[in-house]
Amino acid sequence: MTTRIAVAGASGYAGGELLRLLLGHPQVEIGTLTGHSNAGERLGGLQPHLLPLADRVLEPTTAEALAGHDVVFLALPHGQSGALAAALGGDVVVVDCGADHRLEDPAAWEAFYGGDHHGAWPYGLPELPGQRARLAGATRVAVPGCYPTVSSLALVPALAAGLVAPDVVVVAASGTSGAGKAAKPHLLGSEVLGNASAYGVGGVHRHTPEIVQNLTRVAGAPVGVSFTPVLVPMSRGILATCSAPLAGEVGAADARAAYQKAYDDEPFVHLLPEGQWPQTQSVTGSNAVHLQVTVDAAAGRLVAVGAVDNLAKGTAGAAVQSMNLALGLDETLGLTTVGVAP
Amino acid sequence: MTTRIAVAGASGYAGGELLRLLLGHPQVEIGTLTGHSNAGERLGGLQPHLLPLADRVLEPTTAEALAGHDVVFLALPHGQSGALAAALGGDVVVVDCGADHRLEDPAAWEAFYGGDHHGAWPYGLPELPGQRARLAGATRVAVPGCYPTVSSLALVPALAAGLVAPDVVVVAASGTSGAGKAAKPHLLGSEVLGNASAYGVGGVHRHTPEIVQNLTRVAGAPVGVSFTPVLVPMSRGILATCSAPLAGEVGAADARAAYQKAYDDEPFVHLLPEGQWPQTQSVTGSNAVHLQVTVDAAAGRLVAVGAVDNLAKGTAGAAVQSMNLALGLDETLGLTTVGVAP
Amino acid sequence: MTTRIAVAGASGYAGGELLRLLLGHPQVEIGTLTGHSNAGERLGGLQPHLLPLADRVLEPTTAEALAGHDVVFLALPHGQSGALAAALGGDVVVVDCGADHRLEDPAAWEAFYGGDHHGAWPYGLPELPGQRARLAGATRVAVPGCYPTVSSLALVPALAAGLVAPDVVVVAASGTSGAGKAAKPHLLGSEVLGNASAYGVGGVHRHTPEIVQNLTRVAGAPVGVSFTPVLVPMSRGILATCSAPLAGEVGAADARAAYQKAYDDEPFVHLLPEGQWPQTQSVTGSNAVHLQVTVDAAAGRLVAVGAVDNLAKGTAGAAVQSMNLALGLDETLGLTTVGVAP
Amino acid sequence: MTTRIAVAGASGYAGGELLRLLLGHPQVEIGTLTGHSNAGERLGGLQPHLLPLADRVLEPTTAEALAGHDVVFLALPHGQSGALAAALGGDVVVVDCGADHRLEDPAAWEAFYGGDHHGAWPYGLPELPGQRARLAGATRVAVPGCYPTVSSLALVPALAAGLVAPDVVVVAASGTSGAGKAAKPHLLGSEVLGNASAYGVGGVHRHTPEIVQNLTRVAGAPVGVSFTPVLVPMSRGILATCSAPLAGEVGAADARAAYQKAYDDEPFVHLLPEGQWPQTQSVTGSNAVHLQVTVDAAAGRLVAVGAVDNLAKGTAGAAVQSMNLALGLDETLGLTTVGVAP
Repeated sequence: MTTRIAVAGASGYAGGELLRLLLGHPQVEIGTLTGHSNAGERLGGLQPHLLPLADRVLEPTTAEALAGHDVVFLALPHGQSGALAAALGGDVVVVDCGADHRLEDPAAWEAFYGGDHHGAWPYGLPELPGQRARLAGATRVAVPGCYPTVSSLALVPALAAGLVAPDVVVVAASGTSGAGKAAKPHLLGSEVLGNASAYGVGGVHRHTPEIVQNLTRVAGAPVGVSFTPVLVPMSRGILATCSAPLAGEVGAADARAAYQKAYDDEPFVHLLPEGQWPQTQSVTGSNAVHLQVTVDAAAGRLVAVGAVDNLAKGTAGAAVQSMNLALGLDETLGLTTVGVAP
Repeated sequence: MTTRIAVAGASGYAGGELLRLLLGHPQVEIGTLTGHSNAGERLGGLQPHLLPLADRVLEPTTAEALAGHDVVFLALPHGQSGALAAALGGDVVVVDCGADHRLEDPAAWEAFYGGDHHGAWPYGLPELPGQRARLAGATRVAVPGCYPTVSSLALVPALAAGLVAPDVVVVAASGTSGAGKAAKPHLLGSEVLGNASAYGVGGVHRHTPEIVQNLTRVAGAPVGVSFTPVLVPMSRGILATCSAPLAGEVGAADARAAYQKAYDDEPFVHLLPEGQWPQTQSVTGSNAVHLQVTVDAAAGRLVAVGAVDNLAKGTAGAAVQSMNLALGLDETLGLTTVGVAP
Repeated sequence: MTTRIAVAGASGYAGGELLRLLLGHPQVEIGTLTGHSNAGERLGGLQPHLLPLADRVLEPTTAEALAGHDVVFLALPHGQSGALAAALGGDVVVVDCGADHRLEDPAAWEAFYGGDHHGAWPYGLPELPGQRARLAGATRVAVPGCYPTVSSLALVPALAAGLVAPDVVVVAASGTSGAGKAAKPHLLGSEVLGNASAYGVGGVHRHTPEIVQNLTRVAGAPVGVSFTPVLVPMSRGILATCSAPLAGEVGAADARAAYQKAYDDEPFVHLLPEGQWPQTQSVTGSNAVHLQVTVDAAAGRLVAVGAVDNLAKGTAGAAVQSMNLALGLDETLGLTTVGVAP
Repeated sequence: MTTRIAVAGASGYAGGELLRLLLGHPQVEIGTLTGHSNAGERLGGLQPHLLPLADRVLEPTTAEALAGHDVVFLALPHGQSGALAAALGGDVVVVDCGADHRLEDPAAWEAFYGGDHHGAWPYGLPELPGQRARLAGATRVAVPGCYPTVSSLALVPALAAGLVAPDVVVVAASGTSGAGKAAKPHLLGSEVLGNASAYGVGGVHRHTPEIVQNLTRVAGAPVGVSFTPVLVPMSRGILATCSAPLAGEVGAADARAAYQKAYDDEPFVHLLPEGQWPQTQSVTGSNAVHLQVTVDAAAGRLVAVGAVDNLAKGTAGAAVQSMNLALGLDETLGLTTVGVAP
């Protein structure tokens, strides 16, 4: 049986990556594709890497255009998914790659995004404790942000096992595609080549409350999160360096054991062998998350590093994985743990 | 009056940057250049960007070849500078870009480098409290490591002013040139392009004890340092994201005031205007350090970010600056605060 | 029915890409993997992106280790495939990614490679006229060089149709992975970042006689080839700008018609719509070749531009495509025309 | 005596590079800086690498704001310099980095730019035969385009000496900064990283008639120029691969002799030793042009490769060099042949 899907926002990076993955999904038929300013254009001019869809023409992003599909993926600016989802009806599976339905706390939404809060949907990170069950059969899914995905996976086992105090520091080097395809001067090639720059420093990045939410849930206590994203000269990939003060006597073996226990059965989260550290190149294009953890006894901190492809497992891969769970399919369909390197 | 200088290790990246800067120094005459495996070769084949020196031929790195200069710069692997400096005599100014004489604690040397410790020389970071005076008239200078330079400058004002607890986290994105010119597979272009990777994680990087030493001196108490370097796809530059828990009620204005007080008179350390964050491109080729600081009240941390060119202010620029001080010249001679961007 | 394959040279870039593709091939079982200096090591430490094969251990590259497979892929330095192939027996399909059996002319082999010439095998570029038939049922295949693949595909239709004189100029910008994984100073990240450099200029690059051979066959007359490769700061991809003097009155529409006729039925060679020019990012990781052609009337030249992933269609993809043909499978099995972008 | 200069268009890449160079010029005082959409802003927010000018505020680009300077540099979109220059008066030296006054042929202007042609000014490439004399004492200078600079210098000696037929092919790999700072989607970091792309193919790039003009002047006959620019993932630099059919029996030594004769006395054009090929990294930030030439006997072509920094010698360096000549200063003042590498 084939699932008929539509993608709203097919001209952007998240939309393009969704289509790249869905073209390889064995049980999916790609239906309507929509755009905003690009409506009426051939996809081949906008996403020339998606050769099999080159002659598709984008329709405007309306509920009418998106009707008649089993699953609708939304890859839109925040603030647009609530009304669209409502118009699509409750039996359509809506997978939202945007931020609208990630945060449970209206105050956090208000503080970081502003405007009305439309409530939280099942959160598309099945590797978090208890989360996989919530996604089974869901008709609404909020795909996590890319930074929260890797940061949460890198820190949850330590917090859940009580190895660290609830006070974490995350510094994440990121490629440029996470910032999207809208032309902004600071994202020009000339500006990002040969350049590393911090932004959203001091707790103001919008992914901060989402990391807090994920970590607080497993820690059972409010978790302080100091999060700094750093833009580096690559297109894809996030490398998150995460640390927290040790809670008592904890050795590297204890840390390793907690991460093994947490992820040994996970198809996409991979704890590297001791001594091997993650690199983003290894997960390019794949749904895998590579992790490593150690203990810095002198500094009294646990340090975990995670690598993820922000567009794949960080966005579109998580969306497809969530769709699989929502539809009762094999969770790994259409996804791979093989990266494109070098 | 002209100072006659020699450079040992002229074929490497640090040696090349020294020569680039010294070619622009108005009171310097470039004498002997030495190499190890490249002795006998034209510099033009090894450092084609140094056109005025293209026809110079490298001599072997011996005390004889280096004799007869006022200043000798050593850009050599660690372990080689002690004996060479002894053979050059006490009246020659020796500026060591290597690690041999940075650490005061023999135990730290032993733990991180191994082999005999040869004692500490005046430390070439004049912007640290009290350090400029120690460099005036010195005949031996230990040039700081690149990571310790930017990390220390980013954290010292906060620690010195008691704004933070002595327990810091530094995650530093770095270009590849800091790893040198020796051909190693993980440094190949194919490996570093499109790739961010952590290394030396968990307190094992050799720059860790140097950061500890610098910070402990100003904090007046042992400082815990969690340091993680991250290799990113650019040739030059380090962007260090540094943070520490606030010690009591500290606001962003307090933090800013401490950094202004520390650096307002410094010719090379520049606190950016509020809201503007450092980027490495702005300091490429320059001796400037760009800093910004803020307070993340929700996370309870002070966050400071610094950008430096690892080869310039991070190595060769500091060496020239130290030479100027040692010789009683204007500290800024031959150095610039203008970067090569984009 | 499953084909059991082995890969000799599994630790290099070509070997890694072969395994990446073969992991997605529905009718292949991956058997022995061999290495030279890396024999005895886990693949996970050498090719961390190939997660499903992480625990495989490399065997030494010997005929014994490679025996017992249906297909053996050789990704070895030139000069090593002849003896190995002979030892494997005539019924094993041997697909050689190296240069040993590409050139038909012993004099050309001697001039560009030196040493004994071992004769030419069926050439794994089925898109050349008459070539597909030679690959059907073959037990020996010589995979083309990456530059010859894209250069030939970009020029053959014009030469075959007599639109241009047999005197071509090819300048090809290439990523670094084509130079392999052996650590050489000029391939270090610090050297290739921010750098474009020509090499093998003046007809001395080893791919030159292979381009001559391909073009001469279709032109029916000796073709002069001026070929210059240019190394640019990216890991994968070749963009070849190819031109030749017009032979008489030829318009852009004539050119376009010739290319459409040549490639309209080809699954992997794609002539872009008028006005859209190829870019390497669009073919990253894919087996597609993107082409465009025009006529520069003022200069009197036809200009064709082609983009290819040097590791995929330029090496490993062509190897898999050739294997499919040799075994009588669907030519496109395990291959895609979808690139990983951005 | 100090020359007082103004820069119109100080917020762009050419304007920024002009200021970087002029900050190091010993006889220049930097006066008014103007911008268009950025008028009223601090330069420090727009060009953070120009630390000594950080507190300067941009004025609107008007003749009034630019009045009262000895030299006015124009770094503006084409079409704006004629009227501005007229308003500034004939005794002010106006150095135009734009295209308005480069082309002598009104028909070529009309075909490639459109709109009224305002005549040609002395052309700021003193290394062309006879050109240095035209710049001495000039009050109007048209700075060459970046591609024409390197292409002309790479081909002129061969054409002037009659070594080649007047029928050249130029393929030039270029960094992104040549495309300017206006935010366009195809120039985003995500689009240019990992990507090589041809544009302006088939003789339609605006620098084509300028190359034709330069080459035709020395060849004494119309020169056919097939020019293709290729965008590659670096910020600065152009590597031009240039070739032409040999005119009779010409050996590599003949070619080399012609280039030596042409450039041996030039301070900025450097023919590399035999066997060493140009790379853009070597000229980053410098006014040097690195050249190499050889003969491909099999293909019957002379091949010359040139490297230049498009922003430095390709634009702002040529502007400063031309100003020096116009004012009767030492031609090399404020310029360097030392690159910033790696």
